[in-house]
Amino acid sequence: MKNMVYIQSGGPTSVINTSFYGAVREAQRHPDLIDHIYGSQHGIEGLIDDDLIDIGQEDDEQIELLLQTPGSILGTTRRKLPKDIHDPLYGKIIDTLKKHEIKYVFVNGGNDSMDTCNKLSILVKELGLDIIVVGVPKTIDNDLACTDHSLGFPSAAKFVINTVNELIKDACCFKVGKVHIVEVMGRDAGWLTASPDILPEENRPHLFYIPEKKFDLEQFLKEVKEVYEREGYAMVCISEGLQFPRDMKNVRVDGFGHAQLGGAASDLCHIVEDRLNLPTRAVELSLTQRAAPVYISKVDREEAIKTGEIAVKTALKGETGKMIIFKRVSENPYKIEFQLADLSLVANAVSLIPESMMKDSTRMDESFRRYIRPLINGEVTLKCKDGIALVTNFKRVKVK
Amino acid sequence: MKNMVYIQSGGPTSVINTSFYGAVREAQRHPDLIDHIYGSQHGIEGLIDDDLIDIGQEDDEQIELLLQTPGSILGTTRRKLPKDIHDPLYGKIIDTLKKHEIKYVFVNGGNDSMDTCNKLSILVKELGLDIIVVGVPKTIDNDLACTDHSLGFPSAAKFVINTVNELIKDACCFKVGKVHIVEVMGRDAGWLTASPDILPEENRPHLFYIPEKKFDLEQFLKEVKEVYEREGYAMVCISEGLQFPRDMKNVRVDGFGHAQLGGAASDLCHIVEDRLNLPTRAVELSLTQRAAPVYISKVDREEAIKTGEIAVKTALKGETGKMIIFKRVSENPYKIEFQLADLSLVANAVSLIPESMMKDSTRMDESFRRYIRPLINGEVTLKCKDGIALVTNFKRVKVK
Repeated sequence: MKNMVYIQSGGPTSVINTSFYGAVREAQRHPDLIDHIYGSQHGIEGLIDDDLIDIGQEDDEQIELLLQTPGSILGTTRRKLPKDIHDPLYGKIIDTLKKHEIKYVFVNGGNDSMDTCNKLSILVKELGLDIIVVGVPKTIDNDLACTDHSLGFPSAAKFVINTVNELIKDACCFKVGKVHIVEVMGRDAGWLTASPDILPEENRPHLFYIPEKKFDLEQFLKEVKEVYEREGYAMVCISEGLQFPRDMKNVRVDGFGHAQLGGAASDLCHIVEDRLNLPTRAVELSLTQRAAPVYISKVDREEAIKTGEIAVKTALKGETGKMIIFKRVSENPYKIEFQLADLSLVANAVSLIPESMMKDSTRMDESFRRYIRPLINGEVTLKCKDGIALVTNFKRVKVK
Repeated sequence: MKNMVYIQSGGPTSVINTSFYGAVREAQRHPDLIDHIYGSQHGIEGLIDDDLIDIGQEDDEQIELLLQTPGSILGTTRRKLPKDIHDPLYGKIIDTLKKHEIKYVFVNGGNDSMDTCNKLSILVKELGLDIIVVGVPKTIDNDLACTDHSLGFPSAAKFVINTVNELIKDACCFKVGKVHIVEVMGRDAGWLTASPDILPEENRPHLFYIPEKKFDLEQFLKEVKEVYEREGYAMVCISEGLQFPRDMKNVRVDGFGHAQLGGAASDLCHIVEDRLNLPTRAVELSLTQRAAPVYISKVDREEAIKTGEIAVKTALKGETGKMIIFKRVSENPYKIEFQLADLSLVANAVSLIPESMMKDSTRMDESFRRYIRPLINGEVTLKCKDGIALVTNFKRVKVK
């Protein structure tokens, strides 16, 4: 028996189930090489706890709906694996892999998850096990190293760009405007926050504050005041990861040991009210930016399917310890090549917006816009019933 | 000369410009009866300040994009008119109406705006002026009296329903779940907040708290705890207008003298953390629920166009002091009739969810679902360019 297991890890994206879809469909084309397709429930925890489900038991119609289903269908985790690969926890993982005759392991995730993927790969090599480990890139933050971009980012950017475009139309219809502060996901990198900079000049936010630039509160207040006095309102995009003196009661810690973010816009609004005496509105785009299927970019969907397929093909060729990456070989027309990178190079590295893509501390350069534009291209049509977008509901038959 | 002026008032909806579109297109069919189509900038303020724009100067392509443009294209206001119709302010309004030879006035808005509309109608009657005043219903809160529902509510409900459906998929993919509290617009009425109760049982939020029911914090904590212990997470929808002991630093006042809402979910999350020691996530759907064109319901769009057309036809027939209302004559198949109601009956009245549509204090009844279902039916396709939904940008040529 040669079985495969697929792992989804870290925060979901609106196409996280799409790359899984691609991998499932490709695996189904090789019944001679792959006997069973399993899903690990809640990321690596499914391997630790022997909690796998058999994707072969799911209806084809439900598999098809993966293309528009938010959240991680297999369940996910933010759990980090111990540094020492001789920790007893790894014994449990190996037991599960052996018990279910797993030959191929796929880990779909971002920076922290590629660390998990890398550790698994090192472990099986050290133990001399005939197991292949392949990484599938994913993060709406777009901060994975070695790749032009990450799956999920284009659709999240498309959501943020279109939503901010709507907010601007809503904001500028009142005679006495407000300072609107829109909080976008992104702990270390401002890719997503800065994405609305590609909007046409007349509908473009006035100011962007991203983690790549040291945040100066006094400078921020000065810039906001200037814009408000000139325009009668202000549209400001900030990253949730912005560092400034915060109301600490809002700060919590997630499973990877990072402070859970959110609430920065609200805190900044209070500061603007107190210091500038201007009316404000905080808008936190929150979980919808990583979930909403309505703005899935066609480019993102097609690349996600293809990446899932290539991950399986790569594994079947015997390549291990690699993550699929995208190399942009042409910008106009947009064209990428799928390549492989060593997991050790990807794990825990971070890709930030380079200085060359910034016009100044609050605006992006035309090169940034050239980078973003092709990624958000093309619309998808959602399958709906009675006005509600359909989602996958799996039976989740456990593998005994 | 016989000219018309169109006024948009109160909060925008995703189809507020669609009923305007219907009115413009109908007016253009009667060049013999209507010489010029004017828009009053920022609601009634345009009549007070003599600030009208000539819609006849706008490109046809921009008029067409009104169907998917968020915000109030003419600008809006929350200003209330004085009670005494002999206040000098009314003199300024009459001056503007006379100066521009206005024969037809249309006011598109919700409860407070219909009060403005009613006052205008009484005023011109008292002065014996040959001016017709017609109201066009609009509010995502769905709390306008005399009508089956209000324009904008169906699309906002469709947005909220689909977004909550996404949030549930995102929420239940973590092994250790959270108490998710989703804050939905609605000061006095819970129509929008309760709308996700129509989701299929397996993807339905667990608890709803609406302004129609007195909020008991201890009962709320008990119910949340029960759900969390049973399900491993909780999805709770609350109205922004919920009354409970709040952190008062968040409360501001809008132009109609109402406390500006928002922040209730965040405050409740803090209480849940402190009292139940459970992880939480506050999601405020904020301005997007009244702006996003992606979930415009086809029913809402078609009714909005038709209402704009009927408003103009009504005015041309000489009917004044009325608002267009919808009467549901059949539920399956869904069918409405357009009728008229006296503005005096509509102004400042409020329509709440009746007790008969509630199952208990936290869930709705099947009759509520039958009411909502037909309203969110049918999808629209947005015109996009390079992945971004197009919006109207008017030239705004002022009428001298």
